[in-house]
Amino acid sequence: MSNDQILKNTNAQILDEFNASIMFDKELYAQDIKGSIAHSQMLCEQGVLTKDEQEAIESGLLQVKEEIESGNFEFTLETEDIHMAVESRLTEIIGEPGKKLHTARSRNDQVATDFRLYVQEKSLSIKSQLKELIKVFVEVANKHTTTLIPGMTHLQHAQPLNFGYHLLAYANMFKRDYERFESSYERNNYSPLGSAALAGTPHNINRESTSQKLGFKSPTTHAMDTVSDRDFALEILFNISTSMMHISRISEELVTWSSYEFQFVRMSDEYATTSSIMPQKKNPDVPELLRGKTGRVYGNLISLLTVMKGLPLAYNKDTQEDKEGVFDSVKTIEISLSILTEVIRTMIVNVDKMENACKIGHLTATDLADFLVQKQNMPFRTAYYITKDVVAYANSLNKDISELTIDEIRNANEQLKDVSEELVMYLDLRNSMNARNSFGGTSTLQTVEQIKVFEEWLNN
Amino acid sequence: MSNDQILKNTNAQILDEFNASIMFDKELYAQDIKGSIAHSQMLCEQGVLTKDEQEAIESGLLQVKEEIESGNFEFTLETEDIHMAVESRLTEIIGEPGKKLHTARSRNDQVATDFRLYVQEKSLSIKSQLKELIKVFVEVANKHTTTLIPGMTHLQHAQPLNFGYHLLAYANMFKRDYERFESSYERNNYSPLGSAALAGTPHNINRESTSQKLGFKSPTTHAMDTVSDRDFALEILFNISTSMMHISRISEELVTWSSYEFQFVRMSDEYATTSSIMPQKKNPDVPELLRGKTGRVYGNLISLLTVMKGLPLAYNKDTQEDKEGVFDSVKTIEISLSILTEVIRTMIVNVDKMENACKIGHLTATDLADFLVQKQNMPFRTAYYITKDVVAYANSLNKDISELTIDEIRNANEQLKDVSEELVMYLDLRNSMNARNSFGGTSTLQTVEQIKVFEEWLNN
Amino acid sequence: MSNDQILKNTNAQILDEFNASIMFDKELYAQDIKGSIAHSQMLCEQGVLTKDEQEAIESGLLQVKEEIESGNFEFTLETEDIHMAVESRLTEIIGEPGKKLHTARSRNDQVATDFRLYVQEKSLSIKSQLKELIKVFVEVANKHTTTLIPGMTHLQHAQPLNFGYHLLAYANMFKRDYERFESSYERNNYSPLGSAALAGTPHNINRESTSQKLGFKSPTTHAMDTVSDRDFALEILFNISTSMMHISRISEELVTWSSYEFQFVRMSDEYATTSSIMPQKKNPDVPELLRGKTGRVYGNLISLLTVMKGLPLAYNKDTQEDKEGVFDSVKTIEISLSILTEVIRTMIVNVDKMENACKIGHLTATDLADFLVQKQNMPFRTAYYITKDVVAYANSLNKDISELTIDEIRNANEQLKDVSEELVMYLDLRNSMNARNSFGGTSTLQTVEQIKVFEEWLNN
Amino acid sequence: MSNDQILKNTNAQILDEFNASIMFDKELYAQDIKGSIAHSQMLCEQGVLTKDEQEAIESGLLQVKEEIESGNFEFTLETEDIHMAVESRLTEIIGEPGKKLHTARSRNDQVATDFRLYVQEKSLSIKSQLKELIKVFVEVANKHTTTLIPGMTHLQHAQPLNFGYHLLAYANMFKRDYERFESSYERNNYSPLGSAALAGTPHNINRESTSQKLGFKSPTTHAMDTVSDRDFALEILFNISTSMMHISRISEELVTWSSYEFQFVRMSDEYATTSSIMPQKKNPDVPELLRGKTGRVYGNLISLLTVMKGLPLAYNKDTQEDKEGVFDSVKTIEISLSILTEVIRTMIVNVDKMENACKIGHLTATDLADFLVQKQNMPFRTAYYITKDVVAYANSLNKDISELTIDEIRNANEQLKDVSEELVMYLDLRNSMNARNSFGGTSTLQTVEQIKVFEEWLNN
Repeated sequence: MSNDQILKNTNAQILDEFNASIMFDKELYAQDIKGSIAHSQMLCEQGVLTKDEQEAIESGLLQVKEEIESGNFEFTLETEDIHMAVESRLTEIIGEPGKKLHTARSRNDQVATDFRLYVQEKSLSIKSQLKELIKVFVEVANKHTTTLIPGMTHLQHAQPLNFGYHLLAYANMFKRDYERFESSYERNNYSPLGSAALAGTPHNINRESTSQKLGFKSPTTHAMDTVSDRDFALEILFNISTSMMHISRISEELVTWSSYEFQFVRMSDEYATTSSIMPQKKNPDVPELLRGKTGRVYGNLISLLTVMKGLPLAYNKDTQEDKEGVFDSVKTIEISLSILTEVIRTMIVNVDKMENACKIGHLTATDLADFLVQKQNMPFRTAYYITKDVVAYANSLNKDISELTIDEIRNANEQLKDVSEELVMYLDLRNSMNARNSFGGTSTLQTVEQIKVFEEWLNN
Repeated sequence: MSNDQILKNTNAQILDEFNASIMFDKELYAQDIKGSIAHSQMLCEQGVLTKDEQEAIESGLLQVKEEIESGNFEFTLETEDIHMAVESRLTEIIGEPGKKLHTARSRNDQVATDFRLYVQEKSLSIKSQLKELIKVFVEVANKHTTTLIPGMTHLQHAQPLNFGYHLLAYANMFKRDYERFESSYERNNYSPLGSAALAGTPHNINRESTSQKLGFKSPTTHAMDTVSDRDFALEILFNISTSMMHISRISEELVTWSSYEFQFVRMSDEYATTSSIMPQKKNPDVPELLRGKTGRVYGNLISLLTVMKGLPLAYNKDTQEDKEGVFDSVKTIEISLSILTEVIRTMIVNVDKMENACKIGHLTATDLADFLVQKQNMPFRTAYYITKDVVAYANSLNKDISELTIDEIRNANEQLKDVSEELVMYLDLRNSMNARNSFGGTSTLQTVEQIKVFEEWLNN
Repeated sequence: MSNDQILKNTNAQILDEFNASIMFDKELYAQDIKGSIAHSQMLCEQGVLTKDEQEAIESGLLQVKEEIESGNFEFTLETEDIHMAVESRLTEIIGEPGKKLHTARSRNDQVATDFRLYVQEKSLSIKSQLKELIKVFVEVANKHTTTLIPGMTHLQHAQPLNFGYHLLAYANMFKRDYERFESSYERNNYSPLGSAALAGTPHNINRESTSQKLGFKSPTTHAMDTVSDRDFALEILFNISTSMMHISRISEELVTWSSYEFQFVRMSDEYATTSSIMPQKKNPDVPELLRGKTGRVYGNLISLLTVMKGLPLAYNKDTQEDKEGVFDSVKTIEISLSILTEVIRTMIVNVDKMENACKIGHLTATDLADFLVQKQNMPFRTAYYITKDVVAYANSLNKDISELTIDEIRNANEQLKDVSEELVMYLDLRNSMNARNSFGGTSTLQTVEQIKVFEEWLNN
Repeated sequence: MSNDQILKNTNAQILDEFNASIMFDKELYAQDIKGSIAHSQMLCEQGVLTKDEQEAIESGLLQVKEEIESGNFEFTLETEDIHMAVESRLTEIIGEPGKKLHTARSRNDQVATDFRLYVQEKSLSIKSQLKELIKVFVEVANKHTTTLIPGMTHLQHAQPLNFGYHLLAYANMFKRDYERFESSYERNNYSPLGSAALAGTPHNINRESTSQKLGFKSPTTHAMDTVSDRDFALEILFNISTSMMHISRISEELVTWSSYEFQFVRMSDEYATTSSIMPQKKNPDVPELLRGKTGRVYGNLISLLTVMKGLPLAYNKDTQEDKEGVFDSVKTIEISLSILTEVIRTMIVNVDKMENACKIGHLTATDLADFLVQKQNMPFRTAYYITKDVVAYANSLNKDISELTIDEIRNANEQLKDVSEELVMYLDLRNSMNARNSFGGTSTLQTVEQIKVFEEWLNN
């Protein structure tokens, strides 16, 4: 070969790599085959394919599927994408009828169908995983409805909560995520098949039939929009981003709670790693990595938003860039949900540390002020300043206000010298937690009630 | 003042600016006042406020509202945020009872309520605007159900469409947007009020009552989750991003169509600008700016996703960064939808240019191949190569295949020498468009049908 | 007015708002006037303007500047952008010569010049602020070169550091930021003026002259590229993003260190806020808000990247969206650097807490293993397991290994029964810190050395 | 196995997959081995390893490298990351000395070194590719310094350019990119090796020596900063993003220019694809895909920015997420630059179409106005309105003003009835282009000058 020829071949090879999508869209083989079978059945119903042709196609496609799943299928750049890979292998196996499969179909509606089937299936399976995760949060919460933990704002102790209640906050987040996946599933549950290249087809097809066979609600209503539309992909990327954001929040808490300074929880041994040079160390690698994985799913969302910006109708090759990010985000959320479920299920809760921590920071200071307002009819400002005095007095005794005796309280400020003994009860940590009994509040009563509602939901 | 004192004051001033949110959250004054009135009414129902106190509060709040709306209210950094600004002015006006308004409420649930009310109201108004825009697309589409335009993929002529059909692609996109705003509205229509700081409140409140008064479906179910949750804000940012992405696509097309080379449409004079130095020029500034504004709404989405990543529960000051981006995205979509509606309503369609363009690029080549397959029972590959010959022959005559006579066609390839005369009809541009009569296809029949469905939807 | 007329006027008003940039690009008034003065001087040198005309223009422009700075200038939507606002006011003041100012200039190169001048000036001032911040980090570090703090990985105690050393990590980050701003400044220090609309000008201008007058290195070399180029804006957005990312890291640490559990530092009273209902609380709002502000600068970066994607040459109106994000990011970094500088300068370091924390977690376990390898010639694996035994033994005594006596150590494991007494020294926390004396290591010696290098750099 | 055991094993398998980085960081095998060799040589120089041990290590490492490159190395999840994979295979091969390699080194500085070496090498190779691309732009530009093309703003004809000049705009962009990669390379050219876990090491190492061996300028100055720092990775992600943005702009132009309506250029046959069902079609897939790939590199940038936000010092497992995005962006820019270089080199320029397009849109209208101002001393406003008249008159004759005879011009407006004949020359398209002869302007003279400057730069 001449140098020029070599250069040309090299360029051709690079170009094939650049253009081809087969190395990632092979992920869609099952959807592609499912779509083709439905299409062939419909073509047969409409008299475009004979019964024999259709049967040949269907069994041929199932054979291709088996070859792929057993690892006996070689994907090469020549076949460019999964659709051509499947179709050309089909034709090898069954000959002529294979060539008729593409009647009344275009690569544009075929890829839109495959990809949408994938997104729909994944929306369902992610929903299941979210449910499993919620279940674990509820189960662990159920064990800790009376375990005290300092409720924080600004990472500062604020008011006493029960730990079960804290965990339920996440159950609520993941339930919203569940609803988002559900609502996207419903909104996008329409069949692209039969949209053809961009304008529909002159062939006598039945889109309703393929739609039903593929489990969609009905066919999409506009061919050109359908082959250009990637809203369903953006939605799953956004839904995953929001879920990973929630995962990053519990992960941040797990990391912080695992520190020597907090020691509220410990990761079970499988979910913490030891150091190769520091024998004393156990690192919360798993929640850190969960937190870190938020980055990639945000990136995937912004990638596809960027790709779609300013694209004229209808199909443009830019859109080939729609899949890898979705595959990556889906795999990320799948593994992250699996892992987080186990992390929560197996984490070791240090009840003593949590409860002791509640004795730092005068968590019941608001209760003291509230008491003075409600029971003594004091203006809030006055109550606030008296509370400040009591806090200072407690500090001078090296005590938390929840530990003060009635005598100590009466000594703290002139205006308290006759205060009722029952105040001590109000400053008790557990009482304080249980006093917050408004709907959605932290009291054990409310927490148990919320758990019941979740359990019912989980059982449906 | 000593130098040190001056420095200290400067620092204090910078710090106030840094910490305060008043300069942007004043946007929420109406929601804040609405929420406070509902809260005061509920406190009165529960016996926490007397009837007189409640009436004083309510009329005081309405006065503050009037002062703000008439421009007689000075917002200063000292009052830090809109909640304090309203409350401290209220207390100036009505005295003592003003101080009782904050009973059983915290800044955390107050801001969550105000912000959610804003997002909910805006979701409704954006939905209305989307409906208006869809209406205009449908109206213009209705005038062009028989106007031919080259349907493109890869910005290359592919198949003939009618222009009405092309426009309906956008009506479909904006309808999906509409549904997304609707679904987010429903999913987030819960009242945060009464969640208090993070844990609920010991006061005897009625969250159901405030929820109803504020138009929510019911109260949120978990106080700590509620004060930490910004999912509703992320959803509106995502919904706006998707809509702006759609807007960027029609804008790109309008810019391209306005070029000398295309001349398919012209912006009406208001929506194009002239050059100060080139008297011959009319620039499609408006669609360009619409396209450009996609950037800022994508940015706002990524901003809030970034803020929320890894935040521990419950409230953290980081969350103060949630509002400006939402306000900006909301204003951007509002003005963009207004403008785009008028741009589409008033654009001048150059029917001749569109239809003439269809005669370039052999748009009915697929119809030729289809004819040979369907009517002559030819294998598709053979038909494909014959079509290629006809295209080449037409090129040699400097004609489009849609313009060939039956004799010319018969001359083009040996296998066509006896082809039926009716083939000419199949190569006709308008016939080709009408032949794509599958559900969702481009035929005038289908287009008119789709318009009807939209009209029904618009009338409900 | 008829209804139609009213509607039309409303639309026109909305459109003006949409198109106009005056409400944000007025920020560039000083740069605009500076650029115009330079341009007029050059036109005079080239004989295009007379001396009188030039003087009239220059003094007119200075008057406009004064009017703006004293607040006596009304910006209205009619004048659309800052360039027209300045020019039309100039013509009001000085009449005819004002109209000649725009000779050999276009709005395209004018806006490119103004915006680049702004970015260049801000790059310099941000550099100064970064230097000031580094100075404070070095100063505080200098006070703590012997203060022990547990060095962490995975938020777990790992090895003892001195706190000064920890702070110098940030000095290093901000120094890299400084260098990035510097390098962007140099790379973009070229004058756009004279590029005209997109192709240069037939007028006899001297771009070298205006370039010099404006402090640029030389004129840009390609007019069309120049009016389309926003790389300089992207660079400052990226540089700011990286700096804010660094700020978010120290902020995260400050928040964690301020918790009750850590108590390593306390924000000085100005930089922490108290709660309106919890008198005992001091919240690290300021570092939280610093951390939160990372979101908006990331968003601004992605916004402009989105705007620029796929824009054809040369100028498009989309580019009008380039400024607001830059202004916002610049203001954010300016105020953030100011505030952080004071936060670090004034934070209260709790030396006792830090040093006591070092006694938890067996921070010198690696030193023990190292000792056995180096002094006893043990294979590392053996040493590792022996260390594990010692750690377990120390735990059983409720002691940290740094507190063990030689007898206790010798009891811990059979193989240590004759170990040299000097081992105790190796397990000492301070000795351990000082032992890490490799270049860039944490020893007090190295830390002091690094401080010296910084001080030299700061003094140049 | 019991069900529990199976579940446990499945979980363990998932967890291994989740934690391990080997499946992507194997990309760094060459850098890892290079770093280890340098480290071993230094340890030998310092007397930590004997000559024999060092030689065993070095030849063992080279053998591992060969095994990897010949495909005889199996990467498994058990070895977790590339560092352990290499090291454990080394120990298999050479036994004991292999275990000594890790002396005075930690995984933290090792990974920082490997990754930085990768980024530095890639910065150099991307620079070379950019130079190659610029060379092609300059070569093609050199062939078209007199080919007219309508210079556009807002995709509207504005002024005539030469096509060579238009192409040089991109040469300028890619030259800035080149400089950015260069400057990042210099700024980050420091060796992390020897930073150890986070604090340096007590071993007597020589960081200067390994730095030199690895081609760095000198060692980094702060161990803790070094193991936490990913600025160098962010920089390359940003640099790639800016380059891809530039690539997206030329791609957009190529797509538009390839349309039937423009027909300015045609992709050579390798870089356009035909349609499987439309034999007449040639699609500019390659530039579309180039444009689409902008999305993923923007996404990768935002991913890492997100990961790094708010991370406390020093190493956290989140940072493991730093590599895949960089690898992906690097591969994307590498293949994109290769492809674009060939696309530009081989594109077919349709000179006639370009030059004919210049006759639409009265491109020399500004020249007419300028002539009246300069030669007739008319005020610009008057000239502007006269020009408008001439444009209207030319339209009525169905001519472009560049085609008007002097008589026609004199007829167009009363004030022109005696205008000098030389005006016709000023309206000539080529003259107009050449008149823009200011520095950086479009005249052929300036263009040729700019080409010379580029050629000199390319030859150095």
